Amino acid sequence: MNKIPYKIYLEENEMPQQWYNLRADMKNKPAPLLNPGTLEPMTAEELSGVFCEELVKQELDDTTAYFDIPQEIRDFYKMYRPSPVVRAYCLEEKLKTPAKIYYKFEGNNTSGSHKLNSAIAQAYYAKKQGLKGVTTETGAGQWGTALSMACSYLDLDCKVYMVKVSYEQKPFRREVMRTYGASVTPSPSMDTNVGRKILEAHPGTTGSLGCAISEAVEVATTTEGYRYVLGSVLNQVLLHQSVIGLEAKAALDKYGVKPDIIIGCAGGGSNLGGLIAPFMGEKLRGEADYRIIAVEPASCPSFTRGKYAYDFCDTGMVCPLAKMYTLGSNFIPAPNHAGGLRYHGMSSTLSQLYDDGLMEARSVAQTDVFKAAEEFARVEGILPAPESSHAIKAAIDEAIKCRETGEEKTILFGLTGTGYFDLVAYEKFHDGLMEDYVPTDAELEESFKTLPKVD
Amino acid sequence: MNKIPYKIYLEENEMPQQWYNLRADMKNKPAPLLNPGTLEPMTAEELSGVFCEELVKQELDDTTAYFDIPQEIRDFYKMYRPSPVVRAYCLEEKLKTPAKIYYKFEGNNTSGSHKLNSAIAQAYYAKKQGLKGVTTETGAGQWGTALSMACSYLDLDCKVYMVKVSYEQKPFRREVMRTYGASVTPSPSMDTNVGRKILEAHPGTTGSLGCAISEAVEVATTTEGYRYVLGSVLNQVLLHQSVIGLEAKAALDKYGVKPDIIIGCAGGGSNLGGLIAPFMGEKLRGEADYRIIAVEPASCPSFTRGKYAYDFCDTGMVCPLAKMYTLGSNFIPAPNHAGGLRYHGMSSTLSQLYDDGLMEARSVAQTDVFKAAEEFARVEGILPAPESSHAIKAAIDEAIKCRETGEEKTILFGLTGTGYFDLVAYEKFHDGLMEDYVPTDAELEESFKTLPKVD
Repeated sequence: MNKIPYKIYLEENEMPQQWYNLRADMKNKPAPLLNPGTLEPMTAEELSGVFCEELVKQELDDTTAYFDIPQEIRDFYKMYRPSPVVRAYCLEEKLKTPAKIYYKFEGNNTSGSHKLNSAIAQAYYAKKQGLKGVTTETGAGQWGTALSMACSYLDLDCKVYMVKVSYEQKPFRREVMRTYGASVTPSPSMDTNVGRKILEAHPGTTGSLGCAISEAVEVATTTEGYRYVLGSVLNQVLLHQSVIGLEAKAALDKYGVKPDIIIGCAGGGSNLGGLIAPFMGEKLRGEADYRIIAVEPASCPSFTRGKYAYDFCDTGMVCPLAKMYTLGSNFIPAPNHAGGLRYHGMSSTLSQLYDDGLMEARSVAQTDVFKAAEEFARVEGILPAPESSHAIKAAIDEAIKCRETGEEKTILFGLTGTGYFDLVAYEKFHDGLMEDYVPTDAELEESFKTLPKVD
Repeated sequence: MNKIPYKIYLEENEMPQQWYNLRADMKNKPAPLLNPGTLEPMTAEELSGVFCEELVKQELDDTTAYFDIPQEIRDFYKMYRPSPVVRAYCLEEKLKTPAKIYYKFEGNNTSGSHKLNSAIAQAYYAKKQGLKGVTTETGAGQWGTALSMACSYLDLDCKVYMVKVSYEQKPFRREVMRTYGASVTPSPSMDTNVGRKILEAHPGTTGSLGCAISEAVEVATTTEGYRYVLGSVLNQVLLHQSVIGLEAKAALDKYGVKPDIIIGCAGGGSNLGGLIAPFMGEKLRGEADYRIIAVEPASCPSFTRGKYAYDFCDTGMVCPLAKMYTLGSNFIPAPNHAGGLRYHGMSSTLSQLYDDGLMEARSVAQTDVFKAAEEFARVEGILPAPESSHAIKAAIDEAIKCRETGEEKTILFGLTGTGYFDLVAYEKFHDGLMEDYVPTDAELEESFKTLPKVD
């Protein structure tokens, strides 16, 4: 066996030609979305007013294991994929660990993260359906950027509702979106009923993700030829993101490497669900065993401190109910929490797997995350996104355990993106102004009160 | 022959093990650096007070064709190299051109550009000489970022003097440098004699590159265990950057592709000199012919409107004299000129090649550059740096000519970096606030008056 290279790239003809649908191998399927009015499972017809038809099929299908990736999407993937699996030789040496550390790096594209994998798929099906455009919301702008790139490539209109405070304070991603021809509207706006209502009640509001979702959904459902798209949480998103895990597994298989531990950061679950998909599939089928660890911020601890229950997906409570680990739909992480991973809930699929004991979860404090990020950047070169750095922190902790026990474990983690647009947070960290925040039990109890009553 | 993939990556064992020194094959060697006092060629001894010894050797050696790349540098290269040669299928389709367009993409690392190729080399030789650290200046921060990454990897101190206006208005690259442990000082500062003198004379000054160079050189030459390093213009830098061209050529050779036209942006010449090195070598040895085009901003047109003469390398007039195409050492591009490529002179090596008619040069207007950048981003995905977009503009122009003539030329250009830290300029462009500026003949004549008299 040759020495494993620093970076393993698949050849173009080795890239996945199908996405893998983890749900097909789950014995306990994720609970269905419910209509908030009737509390009955959402039908394809109900969903197709909001989402594209093909995506509704993918959303509801929990038996088909593989979906062909259309050629047009595969061509787009070739522009920025395969993403490398990197052997973290320098980090291993720095930590003096016998562990072998690998990371799948999804940040080498202009959107700066893995979000593009699903953005192109969702845009493609919208185009195929003959739609004129799509709407979405974005917070700091990672998902909005990815979607605008995909829409630009397919010549599809893209309307992004961007939380006003980010629109004003983080203008750079907004400009990237404009470069790709998207219209970016600060939310709340006067474009929608819900926006006007909120502005009337709270004239000086700087917006929220929940409000931006509501505006994007309203525009999609009231404008001829538009649908709404979403970058995380949904089953369809996890399906598209399985390309991460499929590529990672194929790259490691080429060198006969089998990870013992797989680590991913978890917000809504798009990256984690994608990274672990084929490995979890083997585990579900009893073909292999892996320790799988979800890492979330201590300030937004859905897995580790949330309830497994039906909840609203949005703070506006207009979307379907999903059964998931949740902190309550009006939970909002402290303002000093940097980066993403601030969603109150978690993918239904991952929630079910966690509830079945098939994966672990842990939460980490923000300043520890940035310490790990800086340590990683200095030896591995890449300046990581705060989100990704949650996984780095856990990987370093596991590698240090190996140093203590002498075990030569193989660790794979997901490096979802770069931190080039998160330097305000890095600056706070360098200046010693970054604070940790952990919600109190009382705060969570208060938030859980908003959970809907579903038997 | 298989279809050429979107991206050609070399295997690790195909990566260059030697740098190529273009000067060895030049019949007319670049003119030597002169001591500004005696007007005699600078000796190794004189230079070694400022630069590391090994780098002085490389600077002065115009006969050795190949230099081994030390293993430690090759290991570092493996962290972010090989960089891909990308076939711009989508751009070709958009332009409906029969031309085949390739670009060598150097932006997929945290420094965001090719600068890292020389930064690690210069830091390595400083470390090897037992130095404590290095000093440098940086404008917008691309070079400073690259150097701080290299120094962090080698545990070498890194002192960066950053032009004050950039330090204050472009804090993001400053934070990247801090992440890598560099000390970043706004220039002019109270740390140096030259800084104090300037601040006394101009208390409100926001600094200039020339002043920052002077401070960095002063600190290097007056602090035990420090030397000064520079990211462009010098022969040693072109030597290190030859890795760009060597990799590009190896990747294209694998698929039997031979470019007809090679295009690079040109500021001080580090990227262009690196990209063209092995191709120009073949041309010099009479083994092949290529059209080679340097593209510079119309606002800083050293090749196209400068004089080929000995000039000061810095505005402070303390560095050696170099013979080069120059606009005069006190020439400063208009403040509305975005991005880099604002150096008044040009690499002596490239200047000699241009003077010998071995390459062409053209200048392009800023708004045309941003139009090309946006067109490229929308179809190829990558948001390019303004510097790199000069080459994109010329490549698009050549591809359109092919569409008109029907010629199936093969074009290779250098995509030196990403524009993630240049979004203020993109915003201006989107808002229609970007202006073109071209210096008048009278302005240039005025500037040429500062040229030193050298027979």
